Amino acid sequence: MNFSSDNWAGATASVMDALARHSTGLVPSYGADPLTESVSKTFSEIFEKEVAVYFVATGTAANALALSAFAKPGGAVFCHADAHIQVDECGCPEFLTGGEKLVPIKGENGKITPDDLEKAMAAFPDGVVHHGQVASVSITQATECGTLYKLDEITAIKAQADARGVPLHMDGARFANALVSLDVTPAEMTWKAGVDVLSFGGTKNGCWCAEAVVFFDPERAKGFEYFRKRAGHLFSKSRFVSAQFEGYFENGNWLKTASHANGMAQELMQGIKRSGGRVAWPVEANEVFPILPKVKVRRLQDAGSRFYEWPAKGLPSDVAPAGDEVCLRLVTSFATSREDVTCFLELLGA
Amino acid sequence: MNFSSDNWAGATASVMDALARHSTGLVPSYGADPLTESVSKTFSEIFEKEVAVYFVATGTAANALALSAFAKPGGAVFCHADAHIQVDECGCPEFLTGGEKLVPIKGENGKITPDDLEKAMAAFPDGVVHHGQVASVSITQATECGTLYKLDEITAIKAQADARGVPLHMDGARFANALVSLDVTPAEMTWKAGVDVLSFGGTKNGCWCAEAVVFFDPERAKGFEYFRKRAGHLFSKSRFVSAQFEGYFENGNWLKTASHANGMAQELMQGIKRSGGRVAWPVEANEVFPILPKVKVRRLQDAGSRFYEWPAKGLPSDVAPAGDEVCLRLVTSFATSREDVTCFLELLGA
Amino acid sequence: MNFSSDNWAGATASVMDALARHSTGLVPSYGADPLTESVSKTFSEIFEKEVAVYFVATGTAANALALSAFAKPGGAVFCHADAHIQVDECGCPEFLTGGEKLVPIKGENGKITPDDLEKAMAAFPDGVVHHGQVASVSITQATECGTLYKLDEITAIKAQADARGVPLHMDGARFANALVSLDVTPAEMTWKAGVDVLSFGGTKNGCWCAEAVVFFDPERAKGFEYFRKRAGHLFSKSRFVSAQFEGYFENGNWLKTASHANGMAQELMQGIKRSGGRVAWPVEANEVFPILPKVKVRRLQDAGSRFYEWPAKGLPSDVAPAGDEVCLRLVTSFATSREDVTCFLELLGA
Amino acid sequence: MNFSSDNWAGATASVMDALARHSTGLVPSYGADPLTESVSKTFSEIFEKEVAVYFVATGTAANALALSAFAKPGGAVFCHADAHIQVDECGCPEFLTGGEKLVPIKGENGKITPDDLEKAMAAFPDGVVHHGQVASVSITQATECGTLYKLDEITAIKAQADARGVPLHMDGARFANALVSLDVTPAEMTWKAGVDVLSFGGTKNGCWCAEAVVFFDPERAKGFEYFRKRAGHLFSKSRFVSAQFEGYFENGNWLKTASHANGMAQELMQGIKRSGGRVAWPVEANEVFPILPKVKVRRLQDAGSRFYEWPAKGLPSDVAPAGDEVCLRLVTSFATSREDVTCFLELLGA
Repeated sequence: MNFSSDNWAGATASVMDALARHSTGLVPSYGADPLTESVSKTFSEIFEKEVAVYFVATGTAANALALSAFAKPGGAVFCHADAHIQVDECGCPEFLTGGEKLVPIKGENGKITPDDLEKAMAAFPDGVVHHGQVASVSITQATECGTLYKLDEITAIKAQADARGVPLHMDGARFANALVSLDVTPAEMTWKAGVDVLSFGGTKNGCWCAEAVVFFDPERAKGFEYFRKRAGHLFSKSRFVSAQFEGYFENGNWLKTASHANGMAQELMQGIKRSGGRVAWPVEANEVFPILPKVKVRRLQDAGSRFYEWPAKGLPSDVAPAGDEVCLRLVTSFATSREDVTCFLELLGA
Repeated sequence: MNFSSDNWAGATASVMDALARHSTGLVPSYGADPLTESVSKTFSEIFEKEVAVYFVATGTAANALALSAFAKPGGAVFCHADAHIQVDECGCPEFLTGGEKLVPIKGENGKITPDDLEKAMAAFPDGVVHHGQVASVSITQATECGTLYKLDEITAIKAQADARGVPLHMDGARFANALVSLDVTPAEMTWKAGVDVLSFGGTKNGCWCAEAVVFFDPERAKGFEYFRKRAGHLFSKSRFVSAQFEGYFENGNWLKTASHANGMAQELMQGIKRSGGRVAWPVEANEVFPILPKVKVRRLQDAGSRFYEWPAKGLPSDVAPAGDEVCLRLVTSFATSREDVTCFLELLGA
Repeated sequence: MNFSSDNWAGATASVMDALARHSTGLVPSYGADPLTESVSKTFSEIFEKEVAVYFVATGTAANALALSAFAKPGGAVFCHADAHIQVDECGCPEFLTGGEKLVPIKGENGKITPDDLEKAMAAFPDGVVHHGQVASVSITQATECGTLYKLDEITAIKAQADARGVPLHMDGARFANALVSLDVTPAEMTWKAGVDVLSFGGTKNGCWCAEAVVFFDPERAKGFEYFRKRAGHLFSKSRFVSAQFEGYFENGNWLKTASHANGMAQELMQGIKRSGGRVAWPVEANEVFPILPKVKVRRLQDAGSRFYEWPAKGLPSDVAPAGDEVCLRLVTSFATSREDVTCFLELLGA
Repeated sequence: MNFSSDNWAGATASVMDALARHSTGLVPSYGADPLTESVSKTFSEIFEKEVAVYFVATGTAANALALSAFAKPGGAVFCHADAHIQVDECGCPEFLTGGEKLVPIKGENGKITPDDLEKAMAAFPDGVVHHGQVASVSITQATECGTLYKLDEITAIKAQADARGVPLHMDGARFANALVSLDVTPAEMTWKAGVDVLSFGGTKNGCWCAEAVVFFDPERAKGFEYFRKRAGHLFSKSRFVSAQFEGYFENGNWLKTASHANGMAQELMQGIKRSGGRVAWPVEANEVFPILPKVKVRRLQDAGSRFYEWPAKGLPSDVAPAGDEVCLRLVTSFATSREDVTCFLELLGA
């Protein structure tokens, strides 16, 4: 009953098989190998478009490097106040962009609205050198609250980015979870809705460490390999990332593991509600944020359940935890078993 | 007959086994898992000293992050003119250190001498703000020429670093190859000779991507985790690096693979000499730089041999390639077979 | 009737005289001249303590360099949401600190409270690498709202900084205006209240471009000259800054010009109130933020008055501008004449 | 008899007059004042072309900011081994460019040759990410050796820069001295010969601190104001730099002071030769590098002469100092009097 995080899991069998399959033989290093070429093509097929794709191995690197490619002196990156780039990356985006400022925007359900984005960007009028300049907009899909931007919400945010002439970045650390939940195509959720550059995450959904920076206009990716190498993120035995992606994509594994994780989250949510609990935010991907009586939480912990308490800020007063309640974060993954869910819910009294 | 590079190989069976062994189950992320703890202890045992060890996944990251921990404004890093940090890291050391200057020092056999180091540092007198300030010294073991610093050579370089109050960094991308060749202990080749911080490489000797920054005085490592995270080099599923090291170290595998690679290099060297060829530099680890007639090189290539031609600069005139000759770089690894070596030498007419 | 800004003024006669006096003759460059030494001593006398003082020529440089001396990887600087470093320096603090994050804290009257500071810092618990780390606290005296921190308010903020082991920086772009208004000594307003490093501003109070970074513990200033030079802020003819400070300090000129400016601000404020207007924030230094009917503002502009409209955010509802009102910023300086003030107030109908 | 440096002088009377003239009255800050506009136009007139000009106040800032506008990740800047940016700026170019590498090129008389430049750039082949990428070329006019690039030498260097698609920067800290010596127009010495961006120095030739970054294609200057502000180099009372330039340019003062300084250098050189001494490099601007017997140098010092001994590296053996000789650097400026020169030469026995 471990719901601590999807990055507590290891790697799926298909990822391990692919790694084993490609572990022998000598091939060119630094991404010049045939496997990297073939997996790169798979990305273009998945996105129904020729994309420029660069493998890295941490989500933080993917995000910060993607933003660095669009950095400007005195630049400002606009994102949700709870975004991973703002809260959880130890200043890596600031560092790799040469000191850009992240401008946090509050918003319900972990999402920014086009209006709030426009307002935040208005504090950086074009040509006023003192305030710096608008550089990029970043959204997270699925969000840190386990919620999703609908396609038209992405499009509306893109319109604001366009109005200021800056690109839209998507942090897709949980891209697959969002995709299967929205039941749309990768193309629809990205470039067709206006995303310019994507951090495509594999790690949380069954890889060891496989992330990709995907540019939907290869022209804009020119020179990106120098950003990656300059930050120490080019791997010599690059095929070990490619192999993970091969195993990830084959037979639609990535969609299956994401569906499984999302399904487990739905079961948790439904059980929690049956037990009289409520959730802080809609459960739209693989994270559940139940608000539960502290006594029940203690009982779960005593029985060996693992999860994090969560500082659920900004909730409406009728949802926010009362004095004897606490908000938890439960994350499911490919490694979450139905037994774990059932056992957890039984302890809850669902 | 592929001698292109040791980073063209994949991973050893023991590394793959360890990865498979640890691929299931949920454990804490970001290095808080028991395996990372246990492997860290192994490092302390190997070095006969409590060390502070930080896993990363590229050698470039290990080097640049190690140097960044000792960076100063206007700082200068002293290294050989052919050092990886100077030539092959796309400015990553400069970038991660906030713009330190690398000061290249020429030297025979890929090594810097204490005298030349002292002279180079003298251009940065203490307190003369215009020139910047001495920040660190970096040596490579084994060097880019496949040669080794003897222990007393390291000690003499350390004395010069001490004279200027700066730390000594060792780029140990081929640490194991150097170790088994010198037949000394890890402690003797590092802290006992004066090394303050080590980039300990596993990748070139049989791992996928396992490198470690090792501080021999844990006090000086304080806060280093922030440098690593700020550059995007902290892995969530950190155990995948730890597992590689577990497989690397167990049963002395790392020493065996290094010995094998070194042995293959010796066989190559001896065969080349038998065939009438000569080498640019002494063969002391797993690299051989033969100088061969172009006609022979063509024959090797036609038969499917792979290697790089090498710009062997700075050789004495009696060694340097004549007009009809060329210098090659042959790199051996755990994946080099005796058959490959034999076949290569037969083609050479050895 | 120009109240646009105190940086629209030129230089005082005493500053010009000193520059002229020192404009001939050859003296050592880069701050090794006797004048720089003598003016540095003046700083120690003014602060009743041996201080380490470094001249620069812009307030932005002074602030950003001061913060850079205490920078950490993933570091966070805590300041008011309206602070100059946060709003008006085009990311210079972020850039010169290697990408530190500025954490804006809202607060009434342009000031942060110890409680809000503590809360903001709590989001960066020690040892949690993801969030980064607390690096420094910065307050502005006088604030961007023309208000002042009382000595005990500074002390209380220092206590919070101490609790997290980080230094307290004061942006003293309008240091003299604050000093004469509070009627305290420079020592009392700085190190005796807990300030560790000060950006001492001369420019807005009658110099051309004279700012100083003052460290109250010279030990902590060690190596700061390298930070200054690395950012291009060391002047060859350094005496031209020193000379400005000489003219600034002699005969207490700096206190006289500040008193004059503050006095003009008080007269403006009183006249505005007599005319039925109100001010957004208490007038405690040389800035007045009146809230006036738009028709009156139009009348002032038509008569040639110059000032900026101000986005007076966060005012209580009984103070905030109504629909037909607007908030202005009026800044006085040594160059503001009583005639200007009188004329302005007459136009207002005071 | 002070020949220490041209930056030991103060400011000329015309510069002081202009400063005084513009020291009163309120004008827009941050460069929006009419004087800055008018002086900027003067630059366009001087260069016979519409240029984009940005005032700063140190030569180091001008150089480093100019290079930063053309920076690339992993970028390399090619310059002479004795260039100010390489030797005397404490890593400011590296820092402001985000960690670019300066590649020093040796060359006679302080100049790089097109062939050596081409060779140095060849170590950075396009597309080889490990080595980084060619970013810019920088030459110094007059050089650190007091010599000059002839126009066709500049053109030939530009051709090499063009061949690699990178801009040519000129460090013109002693621009006027070079100009009057070559007897060409500012246009001929810059954009007509291929210079893309110029650090135009006023400080060493009679200003307090007036430097300008001049882009000859205003399109390429777009956004440069953000680079300047981000590094803290935008002055609020910007007119104090503009005023210096006004006084500098009026009545051709800048050419007169440069001619005077150059003339004094010629007299020194001729006297030195008459006395039996020789010079390390041709005297083409305002610096003389005599090689003199130590006994004579002692005599000069005892009589109160001031100058620096110079590490005259790389001289041909028939020129280099013998054991009882030493190389000096003598710098003349607008403040050098004929009496000083005469007195110095008499002491020498000329």
